[in-house]
Amino acid sequence: MAFGFVAQQFVRLGKVLATSDHASVVSINLFVALICGCIVIGHLLEERRWMNESITALVIGVCTGVLILLTSKGKSSHILVFSEDLFFIYLLPPIIFNAGFQVKKKQFFRNFMTIMLFGAVGTLISFFIIFFGAIALLRNMDIGSLGIGDFLAIGAIFSATDSVCTLQVLNQDETPFLYSLVFGEGVVNDATSVVLFNAIQNFNPVHIDAIIILKIVADFSYLFLSSTLLGAFGGLLSAYIIKKLYIGRHSTDREVALMILMAYLSYMLTELLNLSGILTVFFCGIVMSHYTWHNVTECSRVTTKHAFATLSFIAETFLFLYIGMDVLDIEKWKFVSNSPGKSLSVSSILLGLVLVGRAAFVFPLSFLSNLTKNSPHQRIIFKQQVTIWWAGLMRGAVSIALAYNQFTRSGHTELRGNAIMITSTITIVLFSTVVFGLVTKPLVSFLLPHSAKHLSSMSSEPSSPQSLLSSLLEHGQGSVADGGGEILTRPSSLRMLLSKPTYTVHYYWRKFDDAFMRPVFGGRGFVPFSPGSPTEQSLHGRI
Amino acid sequence: MAFGFVAQQFVRLGKVLATSDHASVVSINLFVALICGCIVIGHLLEERRWMNESITALVIGVCTGVLILLTSKGKSSHILVFSEDLFFIYLLPPIIFNAGFQVKKKQFFRNFMTIMLFGAVGTLISFFIIFFGAIALLRNMDIGSLGIGDFLAIGAIFSATDSVCTLQVLNQDETPFLYSLVFGEGVVNDATSVVLFNAIQNFNPVHIDAIIILKIVADFSYLFLSSTLLGAFGGLLSAYIIKKLYIGRHSTDREVALMILMAYLSYMLTELLNLSGILTVFFCGIVMSHYTWHNVTECSRVTTKHAFATLSFIAETFLFLYIGMDVLDIEKWKFVSNSPGKSLSVSSILLGLVLVGRAAFVFPLSFLSNLTKNSPHQRIIFKQQVTIWWAGLMRGAVSIALAYNQFTRSGHTELRGNAIMITSTITIVLFSTVVFGLVTKPLVSFLLPHSAKHLSSMSSEPSSPQSLLSSLLEHGQGSVADGGGEILTRPSSLRMLLSKPTYTVHYYWRKFDDAFMRPVFGGRGFVPFSPGSPTEQSLHGRI
Repeated sequence: MAFGFVAQQFVRLGKVLATSDHASVVSINLFVALICGCIVIGHLLEERRWMNESITALVIGVCTGVLILLTSKGKSSHILVFSEDLFFIYLLPPIIFNAGFQVKKKQFFRNFMTIMLFGAVGTLISFFIIFFGAIALLRNMDIGSLGIGDFLAIGAIFSATDSVCTLQVLNQDETPFLYSLVFGEGVVNDATSVVLFNAIQNFNPVHIDAIIILKIVADFSYLFLSSTLLGAFGGLLSAYIIKKLYIGRHSTDREVALMILMAYLSYMLTELLNLSGILTVFFCGIVMSHYTWHNVTECSRVTTKHAFATLSFIAETFLFLYIGMDVLDIEKWKFVSNSPGKSLSVSSILLGLVLVGRAAFVFPLSFLSNLTKNSPHQRIIFKQQVTIWWAGLMRGAVSIALAYNQFTRSGHTELRGNAIMITSTITIVLFSTVVFGLVTKPLVSFLLPHSAKHLSSMSSEPSSPQSLLSSLLEHGQGSVADGGGEILTRPSSLRMLLSKPTYTVHYYWRKFDDAFMRPVFGGRGFVPFSPGSPTEQSLHGRI
Repeated sequence: MAFGFVAQQFVRLGKVLATSDHASVVSINLFVALICGCIVIGHLLEERRWMNESITALVIGVCTGVLILLTSKGKSSHILVFSEDLFFIYLLPPIIFNAGFQVKKKQFFRNFMTIMLFGAVGTLISFFIIFFGAIALLRNMDIGSLGIGDFLAIGAIFSATDSVCTLQVLNQDETPFLYSLVFGEGVVNDATSVVLFNAIQNFNPVHIDAIIILKIVADFSYLFLSSTLLGAFGGLLSAYIIKKLYIGRHSTDREVALMILMAYLSYMLTELLNLSGILTVFFCGIVMSHYTWHNVTECSRVTTKHAFATLSFIAETFLFLYIGMDVLDIEKWKFVSNSPGKSLSVSSILLGLVLVGRAAFVFPLSFLSNLTKNSPHQRIIFKQQVTIWWAGLMRGAVSIALAYNQFTRSGHTELRGNAIMITSTITIVLFSTVVFGLVTKPLVSFLLPHSAKHLSSMSSEPSSPQSLLSSLLEHGQGSVADGGGEILTRPSSLRMLLSKPTYTVHYYWRKFDDAFMRPVFGGRGFVPFSPGSPTEQSLHGRI
């Protein structure tokens, strides 16, 4: 995210942690009480499959905002203003970390190339379509002075898929393939956004040549690799410390605390270095669930699994509540109140561009991706493509944060054009979250009625020759305990492996993992493990 | 704490939650990395019994402060300034809540009267001794203009026992009796402090009569009762909601989130109402561990137990680290740098008053308390009295927060007298935490070598007639499952019960609990319970 830039402005060694000075006890009370309300109401609405927690929170947030506005007669609407830092420093890390911690790693890495294609190339396509579309359609609409930089920002803002929304509408257990694609795309998207924002800062529209494009590609590669490696390093360091020192011998609390803090530290370090914190903390979560989680005591395993999920759950609920309340901030709507039609048409145009922009890369790139797959089972069928297109349409807190960063100066919207862009962003976020969010679940069950069964069978492919290898890889893990990867039978045909690069990479990674990584960093099979424990049950549910 | 007053000043509906605007990514990185360091070092030092985590954190904090000062050449020392709100809003609630959640309830309520005596009357005695002592000794020392209000504040500041320090030096399992007394005193002390600060605000030294004293007593009773009831209400509400809706059916995360948020809400509500948040959240923890904890799923039980402990652990480590770094803020020391001897002598005088003030109530009140006990096993022996006196001498973050509240205006110490009071407070906190903290553990093992065995036998008293009742009450819980308390054998002699009011209260409470409270709010025996689970093991370690 472009948070790096914002962060730099705020990085000063001044009276730093004393910032809660202005935190109001009243608003903390209000928010905590509302989150409790959301949890209870969310529980009561659980049975209704078209409803989800985020929409409940959003609606409750809007209602509370209305109540506050009415009781205070519009004066204290500033309680509702969205804070980028609150979002990037406190709410986003636990959500993304937990997603990495609980992600089905096999599914994720199997689709890695497709995810990269969608996240990197797809975001770029979407960005350019929205950018040029906005220039063509908005420039003649008399909505104040918007420069080329503003239009570039609009492209970046509305091509940012919201991973948090994806978590809400797609179920990892029901549609593991779609979940890994759309959510993974959202994570990679973050790195693309940072690169885009970097590029926009030094953009010169007159002078575009191959070198600049190469530079952008190089930037992306550097950013992606360094962020990923930092996350992996944080995860491995925690695994190594916990394994070497065997901290659980003395205290479960130390293990849990160390895991939380190391993950958070890797996120904050990455933000400090202007890299992609979301990528880092996501891979840190993956590495931690692969190594660190197996090194800790049983109590810590249960605790981390649920504590991380709870933290993420609270952060998500708070986030949507907060977005809902932010909508009612009066100041933003003052500028557009005399031309509501214009604001509405800008919102509609941008929403249309979002729809087109996403369609423009999901279908072509799916086609490209299908070309590389031999087995028809592995291909992305058209109905899945429609779902991928639809499920990634939601825009959320990331878009709002980016819009605030671009179009406000210290929380105030002074220019008319900027005010319209802010209100349009909020309109689109609200509309897409509620409408697309409500429709996605029914759409998935309409388009892919047997998705759960179909897709899980697809991922293990019982009839293909790969399934032998893959099931060996899967079930051979128990016997890997004695140290090396040699016991894995080498597949008979080398050519087959070459024709399946993903499997080859997976096979050699597994060998390396067993021969070097696990003995050093721990992991399943390399730590005492008592069968029949509740942890084992929960363990089966994962990976 | 006097936080109520401070809170009132900050309670404004302004741009409230956007306060992390100024939070620096750098300092968050620094703090998180340091906490990780503290955890690892604390683990390595675990074997050395004279060391504890808080002192490690304090020392690391001071060292980091020195490093920052040296590298920045004294310019950026303001990163180190202590924030009251950070302390009262974020750090204190998890620490005290966890203490209530993990406290040995039986031990705590058995000593309830003594705890109240120490916490209420004792704090008052200590307050007056320090107040008059400071007037007598400091008034003629030429340390700037200190009014009567300042001296009253000094009395309140230095009579505030720090519960957090107590947690660090006394072990609940080794010395349950002393732990419950000293820690319980610290909790009740908080209510007394609020009353004292209220009284000080409207204090008129010319006009003291019986009515004012009665008013203070009434204030204390009101504050104590309302805070306790609010905490109990929060706990019961969470138990009722979770039991009625059986939230765990759908999601473990909801249960855990609801418990955390309800506890925090009750704390913040109490602070909003200018009551004692520490009392509230402590009793909320007790009620939650008695009812709510038994209503949730097994996973949630393990998670809450360890997650709360981890949160508390992180908050404690952060707190001591923070105090250590705060010490190095140059501005505070500027005023006293030309008269270091004076600051040192003021600190010594105040430290002496703290020692005398605590001695003046521990020994007399122990004597009083012993008068009401018939059995010699129940009495507080002299060696225990010395330990109680010593273990409660530490002054910590609460004292610093109160001193900042009284002697600074928006973070700056302008008057010379005020600057000396701030530096003296810091000196005393540092000295008492490090020196008294280091000495307490060896002192306990020297004075009470068989404390663990001796005291646990003392609390169950195998030879006295009460032991039959108390062991029935203890072990009868398993059979209580079938609904009523009738299966408890009624003790033969009513007179015996009358001579032991604590046991009588406990007996009738148990009856009421079994007949009404547990059926409504759940609790052990009223929810499905699978034996042999790890929860049961951890459950045996508690209560």
